[in-house]
Amino acid sequence: MSHASQTTSPGETQPLSGLFQLLEPHLAQLDAFLLAEVNSFEEEIQDYVRYCMNTGGKRIRPSLIFFSGWNGDETVDPKLVKLAAVIETIHLATLVHDDIMDEADIRRSRPTVAKLHGNATAVLLGDALFSHAVFLATQFPTSEVSEKVAIAMRNVCTGEILQTMQRGDPDIDLPTYRRVIDLKTAELFQVACFLGARLAGREPEYVEAAGAFGRHLGIAYQIYDDLTDLVGSEEKIGKTLGTDIATGKATLPLILLRDRLPPEEAAQLRETLAGKRDAQVDRWLDFLDSTGVIDEVREAIFQEIRSARATLEPFLGNPDADLLNTISQLLWNQVDTLQSDGASH
Amino acid sequence: MSHASQTTSPGETQPLSGLFQLLEPHLAQLDAFLLAEVNSFEEEIQDYVRYCMNTGGKRIRPSLIFFSGWNGDETVDPKLVKLAAVIETIHLATLVHDDIMDEADIRRSRPTVAKLHGNATAVLLGDALFSHAVFLATQFPTSEVSEKVAIAMRNVCTGEILQTMQRGDPDIDLPTYRRVIDLKTAELFQVACFLGARLAGREPEYVEAAGAFGRHLGIAYQIYDDLTDLVGSEEKIGKTLGTDIATGKATLPLILLRDRLPPEEAAQLRETLAGKRDAQVDRWLDFLDSTGVIDEVREAIFQEIRSARATLEPFLGNPDADLLNTISQLLWNQVDTLQSDGASH
Repeated sequence: MSHASQTTSPGETQPLSGLFQLLEPHLAQLDAFLLAEVNSFEEEIQDYVRYCMNTGGKRIRPSLIFFSGWNGDETVDPKLVKLAAVIETIHLATLVHDDIMDEADIRRSRPTVAKLHGNATAVLLGDALFSHAVFLATQFPTSEVSEKVAIAMRNVCTGEILQTMQRGDPDIDLPTYRRVIDLKTAELFQVACFLGARLAGREPEYVEAAGAFGRHLGIAYQIYDDLTDLVGSEEKIGKTLGTDIATGKATLPLILLRDRLPPEEAAQLRETLAGKRDAQVDRWLDFLDSTGVIDEVREAIFQEIRSARATLEPFLGNPDADLLNTISQLLWNQVDTLQSDGASH
Repeated sequence: MSHASQTTSPGETQPLSGLFQLLEPHLAQLDAFLLAEVNSFEEEIQDYVRYCMNTGGKRIRPSLIFFSGWNGDETVDPKLVKLAAVIETIHLATLVHDDIMDEADIRRSRPTVAKLHGNATAVLLGDALFSHAVFLATQFPTSEVSEKVAIAMRNVCTGEILQTMQRGDPDIDLPTYRRVIDLKTAELFQVACFLGARLAGREPEYVEAAGAFGRHLGIAYQIYDDLTDLVGSEEKIGKTLGTDIATGKATLPLILLRDRLPPEEAAQLRETLAGKRDAQVDRWLDFLDSTGVIDEVREAIFQEIRSARATLEPFLGNPDADLLNTISQLLWNQVDTLQSDGASH
């Protein structure tokens, strides 16, 4: 395998096995908190809200929050539970709205709200979730949480608008792609880590470093997410491969493929992204492999994870910095094993 | 005309002529503020945001804010300008989302965002406007503004979800209708008046009274708005008459009509609201007139305006209470003259 040299990850300071065990009580409290919050909605919409809260999602942002401010003992900080609820609810609201825009019927093996109850309800339910998250954010003693959360929310939406405007444009360049994923994904990761560390009372230098770690990890995560649209097992990921090709969304793998293909094929890929040709997903998936683009994308993700870790270097040895490092290791490993899954598509 | 006895409005304490002149400098500062805020969005979406801000709307909620805290002098309070920007931006965001749900092509004689740029952009642009409003709300020294605004936002969305769930149900009763319009409209009116008075530093009793005034006026305004879907001149109102009949939305006039019609026609109206018959809008408009329902609805609005005014009675003589009274007079007069417009449909 051509990427064998990349599997050695620097800064691996914690065994992965203990990670989920440490997270478990925090995530259990988050789930209990989110379910209790359902009752604060009007009765008729509680089932809808509960459906959105129980996504079976990975709770990545909450995990970052809990570990950003981890002091190493066994207690769960209720401030961090509330912050995790704020950030996760915003994330879930964006998913409800995303599914309208993508006309998606299925997310995580369940029908989407838009599919079940129509676009109108999905628009409004997302709005209600946003509003509720903001309300929770205003319940902190200082306005720093609600201010940063509001800015992040606006940036997430702006990133998504830019992406929507760019759909069907086959000429997106790398800085443009990078700017969009920074707004739509990395912002919320940054705020999660920054505010997690802040609310845990950590020193300003670490708070800033944790925020910077979150931003890099968010970029890495989004590139990984874009890669899994093209590489991996459909059953495992729970979604159809190649939807970005079919809907004209030029992600990093497709941008690189476009720039690596011979002129004739590159022109055909442009026409495909512009919606002027049949998607022929399998053909482009084969090209991704044969041109080495998958390895190139994986290296881009590894590079971003390395940058994330570099921000934490001065703080290694503290339980929070070590655990954030371990989360980044988890992503590293997922990227590392993605290739072999991909062979089975 | 059967409603001649209702044209005498109690508590008319201010001439209407001076109202707009007093408001003008406040609304001019609001417009300037909103336009300046456009620049804080990412460059590519500024044109979209500007389009949403320039609706040519009536700025009812800002007017309530400015007058709720009016001390009678000529200065414009920048705190109230910022609050007006928060509340109006939330309102504009809900309109952008409403137009997706209603599949509306035109609002105030201009194409809607959803029509111009598609549903995806409209969903996200509404979200970005919401987020920006929340960010502005967090810029006040205390969290009272952002907390109340977040709750109001959630209630507005909830009211709209309930309304969406009820579409096509011909058996909606009056308390259900009332609850929905309280959530979707009266909440934001209440918060506008409450926070306007609060930020102007007025005494707690008046702040509460102003909030209660806002809630009653919001109910009155929404009933009026629902009436204008059925009565009035299409060109003047700038929208197609009878869309609520056609889309199965049981508003007060249609609920009352259903309960006043002879059994056979009532059954036909139920079938129409349930989407099982052609809308036949003109036929129902004629019935509204002949059954006296229009007068009944007008009286319901007048009653709500009277309740709004009663909350302010202890404070009459103060410039703010007097001006809020005058705003309610404006609505009263619009309702009062609606009948004669209606004759021309």
